[in-house]
Amino acid sequence: MNGMNGHGPDISGFSHAKGQYFLREAFKVIFEETICKSTDVNEKVCDWQDPEQLEQLLDLELRDSGESHDQLLSRVHDVAKYSVKTNHPRFFNQLFSGIDYHALAGRLLTETLNTSQYTYEVAPVFVLMEDVVLTKLRSMVGWLSGDGIFCPGGSISNIFGMNVARYHAFPEVKRQGLWALPRLAVFTSQDSHYSVKKAASFLGIGTDNVFLVKTDQSGSMDPEDLEGKIKLARSQGAVPFYVNATSGTTVRGAFDPLDSIADICEKNGLWMHVDAAWGGSVLFSKKHRHLLKGIERANSVTWNPHKMLSTGLQCSVFLVRDTTNLLQKCHSASATYLFQQDKFYDMSLDTGDKTIQCGRKVDCLKLWLMWKAVGTKGLTERVDKAFALTRYLAEEIEKREGFQLLYKPQFVNTCFWYIPPSLRGKENSADYKDRLSQVAPAIKERMIKQGTMMVGYQPLNGQVNFFRMIVISPHISQRDMDFCLDEIERLGKDL
Amino acid sequence: MNGMNGHGPDISGFSHAKGQYFLREAFKVIFEETICKSTDVNEKVCDWQDPEQLEQLLDLELRDSGESHDQLLSRVHDVAKYSVKTNHPRFFNQLFSGIDYHALAGRLLTETLNTSQYTYEVAPVFVLMEDVVLTKLRSMVGWLSGDGIFCPGGSISNIFGMNVARYHAFPEVKRQGLWALPRLAVFTSQDSHYSVKKAASFLGIGTDNVFLVKTDQSGSMDPEDLEGKIKLARSQGAVPFYVNATSGTTVRGAFDPLDSIADICEKNGLWMHVDAAWGGSVLFSKKHRHLLKGIERANSVTWNPHKMLSTGLQCSVFLVRDTTNLLQKCHSASATYLFQQDKFYDMSLDTGDKTIQCGRKVDCLKLWLMWKAVGTKGLTERVDKAFALTRYLAEEIEKREGFQLLYKPQFVNTCFWYIPPSLRGKENSADYKDRLSQVAPAIKERMIKQGTMMVGYQPLNGQVNFFRMIVISPHISQRDMDFCLDEIERLGKDL
Ligand SMILES: Cc1ncc(COP(=O)(O)O)c(C=O)c1O
Ligand SMILES: Cc1ncc(COP(=O)(O)O)c(C=O)c1O
Repeated sequence: MNGMNGHGPDISGFSHAKGQYFLREAFKVIFEETICKSTDVNEKVCDWQDPEQLEQLLDLELRDSGESHDQLLSRVHDVAKYSVKTNHPRFFNQLFSGIDYHALAGRLLTETLNTSQYTYEVAPVFVLMEDVVLTKLRSMVGWLSGDGIFCPGGSISNIFGMNVARYHAFPEVKRQGLWALPRLAVFTSQDSHYSVKKAASFLGIGTDNVFLVKTDQSGSMDPEDLEGKIKLARSQGAVPFYVNATSGTTVRGAFDPLDSIADICEKNGLWMHVDAAWGGSVLFSKKHRHLLKGIERANSVTWNPHKMLSTGLQCSVFLVRDTTNLLQKCHSASATYLFQQDKFYDMSLDTGDKTIQCGRKVDCLKLWLMWKAVGTKGLTERVDKAFALTRYLAEEIEKREGFQLLYKPQFVNTCFWYIPPSLRGKENSADYKDRLSQVAPAIKERMIKQGTMMVGYQPLNGQVNFFRMIVISPHISQRDMDFCLDEIERLGKDL
Repeated sequence: MNGMNGHGPDISGFSHAKGQYFLREAFKVIFEETICKSTDVNEKVCDWQDPEQLEQLLDLELRDSGESHDQLLSRVHDVAKYSVKTNHPRFFNQLFSGIDYHALAGRLLTETLNTSQYTYEVAPVFVLMEDVVLTKLRSMVGWLSGDGIFCPGGSISNIFGMNVARYHAFPEVKRQGLWALPRLAVFTSQDSHYSVKKAASFLGIGTDNVFLVKTDQSGSMDPEDLEGKIKLARSQGAVPFYVNATSGTTVRGAFDPLDSIADICEKNGLWMHVDAAWGGSVLFSKKHRHLLKGIERANSVTWNPHKMLSTGLQCSVFLVRDTTNLLQKCHSASATYLFQQDKFYDMSLDTGDKTIQCGRKVDCLKLWLMWKAVGTKGLTERVDKAFALTRYLAEEIEKREGFQLLYKPQFVNTCFWYIPPSLRGKENSADYKDRLSQVAPAIKERMIKQGTMMVGYQPLNGQVNFFRMIVISPHISQRDMDFCLDEIERLGKDL
């Protein structure tokens, strides 16, 4: 049909009609393989192949000539087949999982529209939509005004926090660089995300100037130690300017005490950033949002809907309380080819200069469409369900022989050891920790090779390798929790 | 069908069956609106609405309750309707445009698989695929070894260039920050992309330490002035370490003389980065790749396939020639929860610590699938066709009364003025420039409001507002070029 609508002659491989036919056929394969099958509990989570073998199976090499329609469809099929099914009900490996069909529809629409979110001119719908979504998220934080922007991930949102704080304290840094400034110091808990360190080295502040604050037994920042570390930094001649508090730590799911931290920041004149990349979505829950009490006192917040809300990667926001256009002042370069000052519409709608990016993917639509679909209520229900399932899981772990919780979960991260029969009662033997540390990796290898489930493990603060199970997906149930524990036992009981 | 495959009970709004039904229906709307219609030359490129009006039309507000299936489908429809059609044959406004169906299929597959590109464990296919694609792109640059990573956009790739160069020269910066270093200086041409300045302020180097090198008449860096600026920086006590050369400048499409710049970098011991975000794809063309002669002597390169190759946003690579794992050393934080060192497979496959991101979108698949589909040959043909069409356009401009080229295009950017009859022959009157500067914005307003085409304009280096027409899409023809000139004339002849 497209041959008739006035298109010029096509060059090889670029016919609209053929292209559209391919796209429709590919979508069928994608639908079957990555949606129907990958949400089916009877299918594997992953189809493990050794790297060498997988390379052979996939034939990745790029050649001079193109391939046929059928070959390309089988490529789509194979990519799907050998990829990990993060939509699968037994995928608990990361801080994202599950499928939200409305968000996915938003993603498909984003991809076909393929525009860049920098000016009203090329992204009218998304400029307005981003503003509405940011305003709504800010209102949940407790701010009636402020600013913000979608970023390609929470790490970059966290880097923005540190950069905006630095500019706020020392605006001359933008032009003169750090040489014009005293040595700076930033503070974050030892359990905080590694992006805080990455931010410090990237921004030229250096990881030596990141002071790690102690955490208590559950993984929350110790405010007394924060005060101590601020004094320590000052005694070393550094100038404290930034505290990163975490709402929902990556491994233990702990929440830093925001009110106490805010008191300390106010007293010391420090910028308070809350990394709520993981825990921000708890704000949807009336029952649990007390965990973030005090977040409204922060100066800036990172929040990743692509984690707990399953919008799909990438969906992360950086929010600031400031109302003086700090974000723009800090990041702008005022390129005249993009942000012309003689446009015929309100040029404050060209928000692209608030970021360090130029082209910027549209990340708001998936969240917006999902929200329209289920409403705030639906998202609240989802968050509450994840907490409830986690409680169930923790209780089951406490009941079962051979399973040991590290501590009662505050959030939806459940950290536990599986102790195989051969190690039970041997807690006091010299090699216990050493042997226990080998259990989780061994079970993990087996589960991946069999493809029955995926769950992460890691050591932390002297605790040897333990499982970290993450419960997010609205599509999972107690049965899936039971399965996981049974499966870990099945895979590890001979170790 | 999904009710039977063992899923647990659904909570409201999260049924697989309903969700899949919605997704299928949404895809039909998306296909019709953003693919069929938006590639049809008889449809509008954009359906302009004032912001206030658009806000009302879209009803963006997020509410407590969700909406019905039909309401949501009409939301999908409306978002598509009021968005700019970057796939449209008359969209020449940005450095991206057009549609590649295979790349789009890759994007849809990426979205449904929804994984993060940091470990082999969760992205086995994409870890291997990214490596193959990067290796291939490096080989086109002229490197048989090296390293690289996909980044969320060329600006971030450019920031990586500056950061890796700084780490290479002063590895202590990662821990100690810039205070341990002398004042640094970077060099880039006055026509280079604004991300170089953004990089300098973000990394704490400061825009005052960015020395702008003069360009010649066509917009290429003047190597003599580069040498002069290096001396100037030294005389001011700053330490030069980084030169950003541009292959394909944003506005004029100029190519800096890479061999001369490489000579100067070698002589002075400076890191040479080539920002080929825009022009990198010229390497596909045997006929035109001489424009990038010397690129193999660079230390690092930015290249955005999402621009000239129409892979869709975002698709940008950062390539380094280094073989000592510099990228990893510079950016790593070695998080033990993600990059466990006791995994059962080759852990060098966990490439996620080479970047400052944590979660990272899969950006290689769209490029890979497109390449598989049309082969290197098809991409070569596409690049050559864009050059040929640009030459045609420039010739037409030279022939037409009232049109004036700023200079002969080197690349696929054509910069020209339209001079309405009222201004012809008035070149010497005092207000000529002032009046000419108002022509492009006025025409732009009309074309957007009528929705017939989109093309950008800007002032540069004392030249008042001129049009910058960008020819990329494999689906356009001479007829589209003719149309654009006719249309500009039609819209502007009474000005
Ligand atoms: C020469 C050049 N470099 C870098 C960039 C930045 O690329 P991105 O928009 O992907 O950040 C651009 C964007 O137009 C560009 O033209
Ligand atoms: C607490 C926390 N902050 C920030 C991040 C980084 O987010 P992203 O992966 O989107 O960069 C993570 C990622 O897991 C996290 O857990």
